[in-house]
Amino acid sequence: MMRAGPSQDEIRRQNLGALLRHVHLGGPTSRAELTNLLGLNRSTIMALTADLTAAGLVREELPREKRRAGRPSLVVRPESSMVYVMAFDIGVDRLVAARVGLGGVVLDRRETVRPRGPFVLEDLVGPLVAYSRQMLGRARRGAVCVGVGVAVSGGVRNTDGMVRYSPNIGATDVPLGAVLGERLALGVPVVVGNDANLGALAEQARGVAVNCRDLVYLHGDVGVGGGVIASGRLLGGHGGYGGEIGHMVVNAGGRSCGCGSRGCLESEVGERALLEAAGRFGSQTGRDAVRSVVDAADRGDVLAQEALNRVGDWLGLGVANLVNIFNPEIVIFGGTLREIYLGAAAQVRSRITTDVIGAAREALRLRTPLLGDDTTLVGAAELAFDQVLADPLDTLSRAGESPASGG
Amino acid sequence: MMRAGPSQDEIRRQNLGALLRHVHLGGPTSRAELTNLLGLNRSTIMALTADLTAAGLVREELPREKRRAGRPSLVVRPESSMVYVMAFDIGVDRLVAARVGLGGVVLDRRETVRPRGPFVLEDLVGPLVAYSRQMLGRARRGAVCVGVGVAVSGGVRNTDGMVRYSPNIGATDVPLGAVLGERLALGVPVVVGNDANLGALAEQARGVAVNCRDLVYLHGDVGVGGGVIASGRLLGGHGGYGGEIGHMVVNAGGRSCGCGSRGCLESEVGERALLEAAGRFGSQTGRDAVRSVVDAADRGDVLAQEALNRVGDWLGLGVANLVNIFNPEIVIFGGTLREIYLGAAAQVRSRITTDVIGAAREALRLRTPLLGDDTTLVGAAELAFDQVLADPLDTLSRAGESPASGG
Repeated sequence: MMRAGPSQDEIRRQNLGALLRHVHLGGPTSRAELTNLLGLNRSTIMALTADLTAAGLVREELPREKRRAGRPSLVVRPESSMVYVMAFDIGVDRLVAARVGLGGVVLDRRETVRPRGPFVLEDLVGPLVAYSRQMLGRARRGAVCVGVGVAVSGGVRNTDGMVRYSPNIGATDVPLGAVLGERLALGVPVVVGNDANLGALAEQARGVAVNCRDLVYLHGDVGVGGGVIASGRLLGGHGGYGGEIGHMVVNAGGRSCGCGSRGCLESEVGERALLEAAGRFGSQTGRDAVRSVVDAADRGDVLAQEALNRVGDWLGLGVANLVNIFNPEIVIFGGTLREIYLGAAAQVRSRITTDVIGAAREALRLRTPLLGDDTTLVGAAELAFDQVLADPLDTLSRAGESPASGG
Repeated sequence: MMRAGPSQDEIRRQNLGALLRHVHLGGPTSRAELTNLLGLNRSTIMALTADLTAAGLVREELPREKRRAGRPSLVVRPESSMVYVMAFDIGVDRLVAARVGLGGVVLDRRETVRPRGPFVLEDLVGPLVAYSRQMLGRARRGAVCVGVGVAVSGGVRNTDGMVRYSPNIGATDVPLGAVLGERLALGVPVVVGNDANLGALAEQARGVAVNCRDLVYLHGDVGVGGGVIASGRLLGGHGGYGGEIGHMVVNAGGRSCGCGSRGCLESEVGERALLEAAGRFGSQTGRDAVRSVVDAADRGDVLAQEALNRVGDWLGLGVANLVNIFNPEIVIFGGTLREIYLGAAAQVRSRITTDVIGAAREALRLRTPLLGDDTTLVGAAELAFDQVLADPLDTLSRAGESPASGG
C-alpha cells in the first residue's frame, strides 16, 4: 500500500535531514548550491541552516576563496569536531575502533589483532570499550557523541542487533548491541550491522560507487560476505540476513563448508580454499597469508598461480550468478577478495562473459574499494550517523542530555 | 542523497494515489476506514474522495448492509466498469489478452495457443491487436482505457520497454511497446515488463504474498524466470534485467543452456530437462507435457519419479541459493514450476534445510500462486494501472482526450 503524504512536521524533518546529509556526504556547500540541489527556495534553505546551526550541527562561514565579484554565498560546513560517532569494526582477525566526526572525518583511531580461538565475548567487548574511553577522553570540550555503529562479520537480526551467527568468529546469538550499549553507557543507540552490508553502504556513500543505485559488494575476511544495494536501498531481507552470498552453492558437491553444506562460494574462494590449493594451509593465516599467495603467483610460483586461477574461476562463477540476479552497475571486491580479484581478474571476467546474459553485463564495472581496508569501518560510522541524519534536531537534543556530552 | 520534502501539490497527488490504490487493491472501503488506514483527517478524506468521484474514478454509496445504528459511513468503490486497462500476457506457448477494470476486475478475456517456431513479430502483435479491438468494442459507452500492460517472457529494458532478449520466444531487440502502441493507437502508454517480475508484483498485490515485503517468485514456462521483491520494491537492476535467476549456474559444467552457459537453473529444471529425464522429450511440449510427467510420477511411474526428483533437487538448490541471498518471507512457484514443486516438495525442502543458513529460513514459507495461471496477466494489468495510481487526475484527463474514450 502507498503511504499517504507527509505532514508539515515530517516535511521539515525531511528537509533538515536532506540538507545535513548533503553537507555530511558532499562536504562544505554554499547556500546557493544547496538551493539548487535540494530544489527548495532560498528562504527555506536559510531557515533550515539556521536551525541546524543553532543545534550545533553545522556552521556557516565565508568561502575560503572568493572567485567572483559580488556578495559571496555563505558556505555551510558540518561541525566535524563537535558532533561525532564511535565506529567499531569486528573482523575475524582484527578489532578497529574509531571516533568519526560529522562529515566522515576520522578524528581518532585504534586497532588491534584479534587472536583466533574459541569465542569469548569479553575479548571483543573489552578492547572496544577501552579504546572508546581513551578516544572519548581526547574529544574536544562540549563535543557530542550521537551514536555508535558496529560492523561485524556475521548475521545480524534487524529488529535488535542480535548477532545470530558468526561461524568464523564463533559467535551464536550474542546480543552484541545491548552488551556494548550497557558497557559504554553513552546514552546513545548502539546499532549493529553485517560488515559486508556496511561495506556496500560505505562505498556507495563515500567510495567507488557514489551515485550507483545497484551494486554488489563482496567482502573477503576468512569467509565471504556480501552486501547488495538494489534500487538505491540495502538488501536487508525479512529478518536482516539478506546478502548471505558466501553460502550460495557454486560447486554442487564441492568442498565442505562451515555452514554444513558443500560447495558454497565461501568454501571455494575463502582463505582456507586458497591456502590449501597453494599448499600453504597451516603455516600462516589471515590477510597476509592471502597476500603472500597472490604475491607468489605474481612472481611465477606455479602452485600459487594454479591456486589463484582455481579460486578466481569459482569467484567468477559466483559473481556471474550475482550479476544475472541483480544486474548491478558495479561489483566491488573488498577485504581479501580485493587481492584475489586483482590477481585473478582474467578468470573472473572470463566467467562473467560466459555465464551472464549479455544485456545484464553491458554496463557492468568491476572495482576494488576506494576506502580500502576501512570500508567496513566507514560503513559502521555511517550506520551510526543514520539516526541523526533522519531526524537531526531530535537526535541531537537527546544526545546532548547524555553523559557523553561536555567531555 | 535524501530528497527534500514534497510540495503541497505532490502531497495532494500522493494522497489521491494512496486512496485510489487502497480501493483498487482492497475493494470498497468506508470513509471511516480510509481515515484510519491513511492516517488523514476526515475532511481531507472527503475532499480527496470528492476529487476522485468528480474524475469518474470512484463512486460513493451507502453500504449494502447496515450493521449498526446511527448514520452509516459512505463506502468508496472503484469505477470498475468505467475505468479499465488492457493487459497482455505473452508466454512461449500462449497469448492472453484481457480488459481489466479498476479494482482488478477481469471484464473480458481472450486466449489463444502460440505455435512454436521462428519468431515473427506479427504473430504476436496481430492476435493481440485483434483481441483488443473486439474487447474495446464491448466496453460500456463512456468507459475510458487508461493504459496497456504487457507481460513477456524475456528481458525488458527499463527505459523504453524494448524486449532485449527472449530466447524461448526467439526475439532479440524487439521494440514491442512501441509497435503495440502504434498499432493499438489508444493514446495511452504501453508498458512492457518481464513476466516473472509481473508475477511477483501480482502475487504481492492480490495473491498469496499480500503485505510481504520480501518475496521471490519463480516462473516456469519453457525456461525459468524470476521476480524478486526486496524491501517492498521490485528488483529491477541497473538496466531492468534484474531477477534473471534462470541463468544462475547451479550445476557447474552441467547441461548446456540456450544462453550459451552450462548448468543454469533453467537448463537443469526447465521443460526440456524434465522431459528428457523422463524419456518423453519430443513427443509432447508445454504445460500439458510437464503435467503428464508429474501425474505419471504420482501414479508410480519410476522413470517419471526419478526425473521429478532430479529436477526437484536442482530446483531446491536454486531456491536455497536465493533464500541465502534474499532472506525472503515467501518463495512462490508459478507457471510449470507450480506442478514441479507440488510433485517434488520433499526434494526442494531438503535442499533448503541443508544449504540455507538457519536464520535465513526460520520465517520462510513456500507457496504456489493464489492467482494461478493468471498471475502474470494480472501483473500486466497492475503495471498498466501504476500510472493512474501514481497521478490519478492527470492520467485520467489525458486518457479522456484519447480516441479510446467514449467507446
